Amino acid sequence: MTERFDAVDVIRTKRDRGELSDDQIDWVVDAYTRGVVAEEQMSALAMAILLNGMSRREIARWTAAMIATGERMDFSSLSRPTADKHSTGGVGDKITLPLAPLVATFGVAVPQLSGRGLGHTGGTLDKLEAIPGWRAALSNEEMLAQLEEVGAVVCQAGSGLAPADRKLYALRDVTGTVESIPLIASSIMSKKIAEGTGALVLDVKVGSGAFMKSLDDARELARTMVDLGTDAGVRTVALLTDMSTPLGLTAGNALEVRESVEVLAGGGPPDVVALTLALAREMLAAAGKPDVDPAPALADGRAMDTWRRMIAAQGGDPDAPLPVARHTEQVLAPADGVLVRLDALAVGVAAWRLGAGRARRDEDVQAGAGVEMHAKPGAVVRAGEPLMTLHTDTPERFERAKDALADAVTIAPEGDRAAVGPVVIERVG
Amino acid sequence: MTERFDAVDVIRTKRDRGELSDDQIDWVVDAYTRGVVAEEQMSALAMAILLNGMSRREIARWTAAMIATGERMDFSSLSRPTADKHSTGGVGDKITLPLAPLVATFGVAVPQLSGRGLGHTGGTLDKLEAIPGWRAALSNEEMLAQLEEVGAVVCQAGSGLAPADRKLYALRDVTGTVESIPLIASSIMSKKIAEGTGALVLDVKVGSGAFMKSLDDARELARTMVDLGTDAGVRTVALLTDMSTPLGLTAGNALEVRESVEVLAGGGPPDVVALTLALAREMLAAAGKPDVDPAPALADGRAMDTWRRMIAAQGGDPDAPLPVARHTEQVLAPADGVLVRLDALAVGVAAWRLGAGRARRDEDVQAGAGVEMHAKPGAVVRAGEPLMTLHTDTPERFERAKDALADAVTIAPEGDRAAVGPVVIERVG
Repeated sequence: MTERFDAVDVIRTKRDRGELSDDQIDWVVDAYTRGVVAEEQMSALAMAILLNGMSRREIARWTAAMIATGERMDFSSLSRPTADKHSTGGVGDKITLPLAPLVATFGVAVPQLSGRGLGHTGGTLDKLEAIPGWRAALSNEEMLAQLEEVGAVVCQAGSGLAPADRKLYALRDVTGTVESIPLIASSIMSKKIAEGTGALVLDVKVGSGAFMKSLDDARELARTMVDLGTDAGVRTVALLTDMSTPLGLTAGNALEVRESVEVLAGGGPPDVVALTLALAREMLAAAGKPDVDPAPALADGRAMDTWRRMIAAQGGDPDAPLPVARHTEQVLAPADGVLVRLDALAVGVAAWRLGAGRARRDEDVQAGAGVEMHAKPGAVVRAGEPLMTLHTDTPERFERAKDALADAVTIAPEGDRAAVGPVVIERVG
Repeated sequence: MTERFDAVDVIRTKRDRGELSDDQIDWVVDAYTRGVVAEEQMSALAMAILLNGMSRREIARWTAAMIATGERMDFSSLSRPTADKHSTGGVGDKITLPLAPLVATFGVAVPQLSGRGLGHTGGTLDKLEAIPGWRAALSNEEMLAQLEEVGAVVCQAGSGLAPADRKLYALRDVTGTVESIPLIASSIMSKKIAEGTGALVLDVKVGSGAFMKSLDDARELARTMVDLGTDAGVRTVALLTDMSTPLGLTAGNALEVRESVEVLAGGGPPDVVALTLALAREMLAAAGKPDVDPAPALADGRAMDTWRRMIAAQGGDPDAPLPVARHTEQVLAPADGVLVRLDALAVGVAAWRLGAGRARRDEDVQAGAGVEMHAKPGAVVRAGEPLMTLHTDTPERFERAKDALADAVTIAPEGDRAAVGPVVIERVG
């Protein structure tokens, strides 16, 4: 077959700050997926896109081209409206766990097609796999049946959605071309649009533990994704949320499940509860239920009931004891005062090094490993009291975890006020 | 072996407009040559270099790192000083053919390690291979013996010099990363410095038929290469020369040999003679012979004698008839007037399409194919008179060659003056 374009011409167009035509984009994404455009050609193009940007039209077309390389799912046979949530990834971000059953409690189907963690942010599937018996892989039919019967499902994304994205993401990961807002936005949105959700709420993290370090970048990513979703007929809204400090008091797989169950039992850390409710309200509104207040369902056990059915439907035992790491070590407060900073990235890296995360895709994670925090910014602490407890099955990892935490906290003289902001910074709709 | 760096960190440094350290450069060039840095990683880095540039220190180190991947040659055993010439490539650029024997006539060794043509500019080896019996491949020993005995040698560059450059050039060719001044300069100079020449004269072409279309870019490339050579202990100078119109009256392999022999016989087109003498003077001066006037040696047959010995030493018969194409076709002047423009790129593409050049490295070229010009800018022409003769063995190529020439000439009313500038525009030393 004669190809419609030459890869070098397409690369040169973007390199020289031109706009790629619709036909060029359709061709290069498809030809890359077919193997006609080589990896080294796509990486040069990705670098040119990262450095020279893409217009709104180019991003939308690039996203559509990635969707066109695979299958599309369809939830229209369900009796319930669908609403999905996507987080750009943070430290201690277990929000999907209480959120999905909470929203499902109100008659909305919540399909959470999730991934595993890589690097310092955990993966939702890794967390749920800490529950004995729970399995992430479902067929499309099993997923649809569970959405109809339980309302909430968290499962492994199939390989059929936007295969171009899978290939391109692996390439970007090894070529220094991850940090491009057009490429990040199209990667996320191609899968969400192909998945067929009716509504989508994006949780765009900003701060040291997030991919986006600055509010401006987070805002641009949120705006780009909201536009992409809206243009594709998905009711889409984004919340910019704080990731300068970890969410809640735990980072690690079983540790985060435990904290999520506390939230579903009506307790749990205030920031986790606040963000769960804020996202639930957005999802319910986007699914056509703007007047529902989800908060009572955390207190009265309805969300917990849905959680138990969701876990059981995928083989998990919601009553089984969660795995516990074999070794723990304390990190003590170095001084009296008020904790004004607890750095999300440092805690995330420490949890990762303790065994909660993986450095390569084929590694296993430890279910019990992670960091448990005893104080959050704003708390008064005393020298020698425990600030954190580190958990691992492999105690030789403590040293490198503590190295990561060496500069993680700032303690100011008592009487100083910690600048503790709200977890939800801004809404982009 | 544990690697000293991570390729993604090196790519990110340049992507984010940082300077690469000496250690990073040494590592990434060596690791790429060893296959540890993958093609898709190097192409992303090459694109970042193209878009974000390199400092003088980075370029020098990159060049040194490429040299360090291979062998270095040594001409110090010769009784003569060495001077080399490199052209960045143009249409009808046969200057090496008269120049090498001319300079050698004055006791300077001229090692011309050359390549074959790709695209619209011809290759010196392709031209000399039009001479029956001539062979391009010499061993190092044969080359040194010929330099000592004849003084001039034009031969194929061995694969041992800067193998990193060979690999990187092939990658840049397919990834839209050729047009980077730091990468062009380091590619050329790594081979010239590794070759071990004592003096080097660079012919940097500027104009439509050249790689550098603007004088500013050509000047920057020349300055970069002169600095690289000087810093490496090679006496280096550059001439910026005009490539808006072809050099001489022929573009094509045997056609250019014929014209070169005319120059060696004391005739030939004025621009070819002028550039040959200008480059010869620079080479002689750089080789320690600033007071020699090379012009008489073209008139009195001394340069021709050296040419004949140079060709014969490599198996060629300087008296054999040159190949002639089986078919010719005329291109006629469309109007009366003065020829004010004859575009180098158009003529180069036409010659290429007639069979003088190749589109892929494994193609053969036609010895007799090419374009013979009957008028150059400044000449008065009459409608219907031949402007050019096209030569090929494969007459089905005439149409596409004429397509390339459709907009190649501008004829102004007689009395208008053509802006014909000197062939040498500027000296960078």
